[in-house]
Amino acid sequence: MTARLTAPTPAAGRTAALTRRLREAVGVERVLTDPAQLRTYECDGLTNFRVTPGVVVLAESRQHVIDTVRLCAEAGVPFVARGSGTGLSGGALPVSEGVLLVLSRLRAIGPVDPDNARVVVEPGVINLWVTRDASPHNLAYAPDPSSQQVCTIGGNVAENAGGAHCLKYGFTVNHVVGAEVVLPDGSVVNLGGTAPEHPGYDLLGTFIGSEGTLGVATSLTLRLVRAPEAVQTMLVGFRSVEDAAGTVGDIIAAGILPAAIEMMDALAIEAAEAAVHCGYPAGAVAVLVIELDGPEVEVDAQFAQVEQIALARSAFETRIAQSDAERALMWKGRKSAFAAVGRISPAYFVQDGVIPRTQLPQVLTEIGRMAAAVGLRVANVFHAGDGNLHPLVLYDDAVDGQAHDAEELASEILELCVSLGGSITGEHGVGAEKRMKMAVQFTSDDLDTMQRVRCAFDPDGVANPGKIFPTPRLCGERPGPRTGEHPLQAAGLGEVF
Amino acid sequence: MTARLTAPTPAAGRTAALTRRLREAVGVERVLTDPAQLRTYECDGLTNFRVTPGVVVLAESRQHVIDTVRLCAEAGVPFVARGSGTGLSGGALPVSEGVLLVLSRLRAIGPVDPDNARVVVEPGVINLWVTRDASPHNLAYAPDPSSQQVCTIGGNVAENAGGAHCLKYGFTVNHVVGAEVVLPDGSVVNLGGTAPEHPGYDLLGTFIGSEGTLGVATSLTLRLVRAPEAVQTMLVGFRSVEDAAGTVGDIIAAGILPAAIEMMDALAIEAAEAAVHCGYPAGAVAVLVIELDGPEVEVDAQFAQVEQIALARSAFETRIAQSDAERALMWKGRKSAFAAVGRISPAYFVQDGVIPRTQLPQVLTEIGRMAAAVGLRVANVFHAGDGNLHPLVLYDDAVDGQAHDAEELASEILELCVSLGGSITGEHGVGAEKRMKMAVQFTSDDLDTMQRVRCAFDPDGVANPGKIFPTPRLCGERPGPRTGEHPLQAAGLGEVF
Repeated sequence: MTARLTAPTPAAGRTAALTRRLREAVGVERVLTDPAQLRTYECDGLTNFRVTPGVVVLAESRQHVIDTVRLCAEAGVPFVARGSGTGLSGGALPVSEGVLLVLSRLRAIGPVDPDNARVVVEPGVINLWVTRDASPHNLAYAPDPSSQQVCTIGGNVAENAGGAHCLKYGFTVNHVVGAEVVLPDGSVVNLGGTAPEHPGYDLLGTFIGSEGTLGVATSLTLRLVRAPEAVQTMLVGFRSVEDAAGTVGDIIAAGILPAAIEMMDALAIEAAEAAVHCGYPAGAVAVLVIELDGPEVEVDAQFAQVEQIALARSAFETRIAQSDAERALMWKGRKSAFAAVGRISPAYFVQDGVIPRTQLPQVLTEIGRMAAAVGLRVANVFHAGDGNLHPLVLYDDAVDGQAHDAEELASEILELCVSLGGSITGEHGVGAEKRMKMAVQFTSDDLDTMQRVRCAFDPDGVANPGKIFPTPRLCGERPGPRTGEHPLQAAGLGEVF
Repeated sequence: MTARLTAPTPAAGRTAALTRRLREAVGVERVLTDPAQLRTYECDGLTNFRVTPGVVVLAESRQHVIDTVRLCAEAGVPFVARGSGTGLSGGALPVSEGVLLVLSRLRAIGPVDPDNARVVVEPGVINLWVTRDASPHNLAYAPDPSSQQVCTIGGNVAENAGGAHCLKYGFTVNHVVGAEVVLPDGSVVNLGGTAPEHPGYDLLGTFIGSEGTLGVATSLTLRLVRAPEAVQTMLVGFRSVEDAAGTVGDIIAAGILPAAIEMMDALAIEAAEAAVHCGYPAGAVAVLVIELDGPEVEVDAQFAQVEQIALARSAFETRIAQSDAERALMWKGRKSAFAAVGRISPAYFVQDGVIPRTQLPQVLTEIGRMAAAVGLRVANVFHAGDGNLHPLVLYDDAVDGQAHDAEELASEILELCVSLGGSITGEHGVGAEKRMKMAVQFTSDDLDTMQRVRCAFDPDGVANPGKIFPTPRLCGERPGPRTGEHPLQAAGLGEVF
């Protein structure tokens, strides 16, 4: 599978010449070519895709990034930027013989500007550090991916990271107001800025979530939110997934916007209970973890309403955390679920799809039916409030053909999401993994439009090639008839980038 | 000035041939060429820029839009789309001998989907109609430009319209989740969609606010917000603008996010009082209109806090509206201010700039100093919460040179905004009016990047040419050295689009 999905290899001689120039520009000690060192960087969190890069650059300054990108552009050698490598869709998968540009040493975090609720950071800053620095001012950085203790802001921006609390607070795109970006030709531009509105095109929104294909951010201006006066967490047990899903819809329909509504089904609960003894309601077929935040009077009043809604949907247990320890345990069950599933199954695929929230009950029923049909188990853990599913498809790689069946099932679940008006990814990105799925969601004209924008930023296709786009395109070619197959496909041309 | 700022004229013969094809495609009765009829469309709300179009098409269906755009592309004749023409920056200024595509007859408004809080509308739907249709479901469409009784959603999308309540609710870009767009070559693409997150590039964000230069929307999916349980409005009088501005900052710093904080200075108050007898506090040098919405308990608690903050800044009167009629009168003073200024001055320029909120007192002091230096009066009316100023520069066109001085002053105020970290426009757009100012805010590399995206969508420059961009560019040319002057400028080439 890897070969089919990766970008073409530049000539090794070209990379060797580039390596010499990189050493001159950024210093010998920051340029790695030892095969054992290179293998450290051969994958991100999607470990079943692996490619060894030609050379790794450990940038320690903005100028190192500019120099590296410029030299790659001049040499025509592709580059892939990465932070901590926690991504789950292979967005930081290297290109063979290409440059891997590591940004994790760019860790400067500016002073918090409490009056404007802003802070400027370098891309290698760890997500959680921002809230750590902001909290003395009673401020916080809202996006909270599960990997927030290790993932970088640069990676969050590349993938437009979400998290449990993006139901109320939005995704990374809602919390980054400005970026300094090195374009694929080495020039430096500023997108967005500190003012609330900017004239001209909103290219910052396009850059965020472009998975490293439009350039490399060297500085990001983040919006901070006021830390809420009160936070309360409730655990609710149900005897059916339909009731749990219905409760989610009823809460939103009542005009209540929780900070988070997380849902787990029976198999996910079983796994979490076995792993971390989180004390979820015994016999629950589904649980919701509901968190409200805001002014204390509002949180109290709304929780009474949420409890009534859940009881009307036959919840058999509702429990409000009485201490920080109890609250932490409720979250521990949810946050450990992925790893916990690894204890009850030899292997599993994490899927990431989105559906309109109102379709939750139907989707769960259908996933159950599809799984039963091929004799596999699926544990469902998800951000229910915004319809972002994470089905975990369990399989045993010792059983012949089961990995293949599991992959097929995971793929069919995505197509189900799209057919219900949803999306092939909620927060993990397209990366190398899902680019062949883009044609399920988008028409050829839709993809051509994105492709033309990519060419506007990166006409030579050197920035993170082999990601996002399902079919190769040459920049500069204007598609003739904008329907059906692209001329390059018809001509059977292979990978361009 | 008009000549310098408009796009080149296509050959009249080409337009005549196109007119025949347009009549065949959309029907004779929908294609206007009578000079008297054409003059109706020669400007939008920026009436000092006027250009008569070559032909006007009154589209009545999605297919009419597609056919018109496709025929323009084939003929190489530029087109400008418009709705009600309430824009204030000349974004809908026609191109001489070009096509003006009027969308105001595309007024279908889909059934409100209360479960997902969405509604699909055509571009000619009037802003206020959306809330009218949503209100039986206890929902509302949040963006509320002052022209909301007449302006269209299509125009709101083109300009990324704001309004008094965008402090809390955000701009149009935060409330449009999907668009069907006819690209400048006549192909049709879908941007965004109903799912909360989409893979690939977020081109919807780029399209919104692109002022008609990237294509024409034929359908828009709008996000609706829950109508708040309670809305309360407070009027506060101050003896200095510094105190009023300081109060704005203190409210936000206290973690309170009002739905709106509007500010007016003495001259604006005087004008509004004379025009609509709004009963603002006598002797006030500045007033704030503060609106809070949300759960009733929260609104009550926060208003007590707001009052304390204002009193600590020497407010001499705080008044909470006790009835809908009193609330309406508070808003009437604010909303009539532009027109009211027309009663105390023969003429005025409306300016639109943005500054970081924390700079409010400095900006007001500086505007006062600049106005005094040239002997002009400036009335300030603005969305203070997000730093969006609307200085009204008063002048008498019967006095020789005063219009010029006023225009200069309005221009200098924008440069002041940029120098303080703000922007040349908050919500009125760049259009034809401010394109020469873009270079004040953006570097040549920044503008090149936008330009390359424009070329990705519209390589032939037929969609609303002569707007946004300060300097001509040829698509297909790749700028050589990405610093300093563009080769085309150096070569003295004139307008391309």
